Amino acid sequence: MALEGELDSDVVRLGGDARQRFHDARGYGYPLSGNEIALSPVEAAHLLYTDNIDGVRVDGERVGFRGFTAREPGVDFAVRYLVYADLRARGLYLSPAREPWIDPDAFDGVDDDTDFAVYPRGKGPNDGELEYALRVLGERTDVPATALEPGVLAVVDEESEITYLEVATPTVTGDSVRVTDPGLVPLGTDGMDPSETGVGADLLEDRVVIWNPPTALYERTFYGQPLEGREYDGETPTIQCSLLEAAHLASVGVLDLDPGAVRERGRAVEGDRFDRRLRVYTALRERGVVPKTGYKFGADFRTYATVDTVDDLGHSEHLIRVVPSTHDFEPRDLSLDVRLAHGVRKTMVVALVTDEPAHPDDPAEGISWRSVERLTP
Amino acid sequence: MALEGELDSDVVRLGGDARQRFHDARGYGYPLSGNEIALSPVEAAHLLYTDNIDGVRVDGERVGFRGFTAREPGVDFAVRYLVYADLRARGLYLSPAREPWIDPDAFDGVDDDTDFAVYPRGKGPNDGELEYALRVLGERTDVPATALEPGVLAVVDEESEITYLEVATPTVTGDSVRVTDPGLVPLGTDGMDPSETGVGADLLEDRVVIWNPPTALYERTFYGQPLEGREYDGETPTIQCSLLEAAHLASVGVLDLDPGAVRERGRAVEGDRFDRRLRVYTALRERGVVPKTGYKFGADFRTYATVDTVDDLGHSEHLIRVVPSTHDFEPRDLSLDVRLAHGVRKTMVVALVTDEPAHPDDPAEGISWRSVERLTP
Repeated sequence: MALEGELDSDVVRLGGDARQRFHDARGYGYPLSGNEIALSPVEAAHLLYTDNIDGVRVDGERVGFRGFTAREPGVDFAVRYLVYADLRARGLYLSPAREPWIDPDAFDGVDDDTDFAVYPRGKGPNDGELEYALRVLGERTDVPATALEPGVLAVVDEESEITYLEVATPTVTGDSVRVTDPGLVPLGTDGMDPSETGVGADLLEDRVVIWNPPTALYERTFYGQPLEGREYDGETPTIQCSLLEAAHLASVGVLDLDPGAVRERGRAVEGDRFDRRLRVYTALRERGVVPKTGYKFGADFRTYATVDTVDDLGHSEHLIRVVPSTHDFEPRDLSLDVRLAHGVRKTMVVALVTDEPAHPDDPAEGISWRSVERLTP
Repeated sequence: MALEGELDSDVVRLGGDARQRFHDARGYGYPLSGNEIALSPVEAAHLLYTDNIDGVRVDGERVGFRGFTAREPGVDFAVRYLVYADLRARGLYLSPAREPWIDPDAFDGVDDDTDFAVYPRGKGPNDGELEYALRVLGERTDVPATALEPGVLAVVDEESEITYLEVATPTVTGDSVRVTDPGLVPLGTDGMDPSETGVGADLLEDRVVIWNPPTALYERTFYGQPLEGREYDGETPTIQCSLLEAAHLASVGVLDLDPGAVRERGRAVEGDRFDRRLRVYTALRERGVVPKTGYKFGADFRTYATVDTVDDLGHSEHLIRVVPSTHDFEPRDLSLDVRLAHGVRKTMVVALVTDEPAHPDDPAEGISWRSVERLTP
């Protein structure tokens, strides 16, 4: 006997032995009374495509996969179907992340933006366990920074290939030597005039030259870059710093420069971006992480978590991109960043910075950190 | 005796045995009368920094490296000095790319945007040979697409590290099977109505489904992607195409779809970008190159030069980014693209597309191709 569903408002009702066969055994739909179940259009389309059911009656007419999907409007259905089918083909069960398929509150991480609750391999909707809270996007759909919440994004490109990106909240801390550690370099603190204790430096148009820095400044805390870009030989200690590095060093009293003047210069060459980056730079330094420019990777920073001396830097762990918390990401850019970071064995981290002024005692306040990595389900 | 230069307008004059010692032997400056030479400020700064000269008299006062560079204004001097010093440290000689240091017309590739003429290792300004026509940029300086001319860009980042990028004109041709090759698939040409010969397809919101394509369409010419993203098993021939692929297939009469309707849909989801990309897509296909989406690499296309069957694709050679010829590149973005391409063993190619309407018989007209690769001098 042909097994046929019936479209009823926005679900497809399916009778016969559907409950045991499709819901209990394979995680499709949700139970109605008796053996009947209700399927979302995506679930019904998948059963049609895989020849598990023979058709769906729509307004008295029987349609197959092509006819059924043709009547589902818009980009959303197509991309959700592609992701649903891909995960099914990988042997995973998943449900629309809403009542009555599941109770969203029962699964940590499922929110209004979640499209599918994906279960651990071998589990289904009744086992109460979640593998991923999955959001589906077309490659042309922007992702507001606020939607970059822990979970998994499935991005469907124009040729219908799918990239899975896992968003999480990373630990961005370290135990590098701090320039303010006692005895390391002279500090213009304790009421002393920085011009008496600070290190002399020239503020150039878009960088700073420190002519005779304490050697620890570069060698232990990894500020600046020896002039000429050659291997540092310990004999030509003149270093150049970025405006970010100089602004930080001036603000903690290491440099005999007015921190406000350095920040002004930074804003002149970078605009608002400079303040956002300085906030993240400062938060990282205060957490014991050393940020250096991420320019060669197209990022704001690459970071080192445990710098004790520049001769033994180790591998940098993160690439950090600083954006305002109102930023809209193009999935393409996220994909590029994540791909590049993976290729150089680093993790891509986005630092989302609010518009609120920085907290005077805690530069990390108002910064949200998100790691984004590729995932194979 | 202390060797001292003298600032004279915008050059530093240097006497004594300067001509033999610095110009003839090591490529600094240009000769004046007798043994005297004239140095550009960058050259003079380098001789000061390397203790080859002891000072420069400026308005009757003698200054050293710090004093001399402090009076040179702006970002330009700093970044040009850094690049000059880096190349010198690598053992190369170079001159300002202008009269009277060199005759720009005597060196192919030197134009108004060139900062330095860099000579082959062991050669100097009098040997008439050029290794690179070098342009120097700070990482915050945008590069207009029109300035992306063959030559080398030296980009100095905020921490004074230098990335060298070589711009060239790549050969973007191939000998892949063309969908219009006789006998491959039915074509709605020769006055026949495409609806009689063309392949049926559904135009969805942002992609196209071809339900029963000729197998050659995917297997030989690599259009589309089998539905469900699984390994193609030859038994479920339904494929999905991007709007670009479909627009091209419709325009050559393979699909029973109105090419104008597909383009309209493309513009609706992508705006002007769709027309630019279609022009490049078409030019590539007509040159025997197969473009597929470059989404996973953050590019518009990845390309295959010799597709005969999808089972034997080979390695894709290029990542192509399509931009209008009025585009301004941020060096950071160029750096990111080039780095990523290198990591996946491909060459980054930029396709610059004019605003002029496409030539009806030659879609490649109005497209300029530029490859950009990292270089170690």
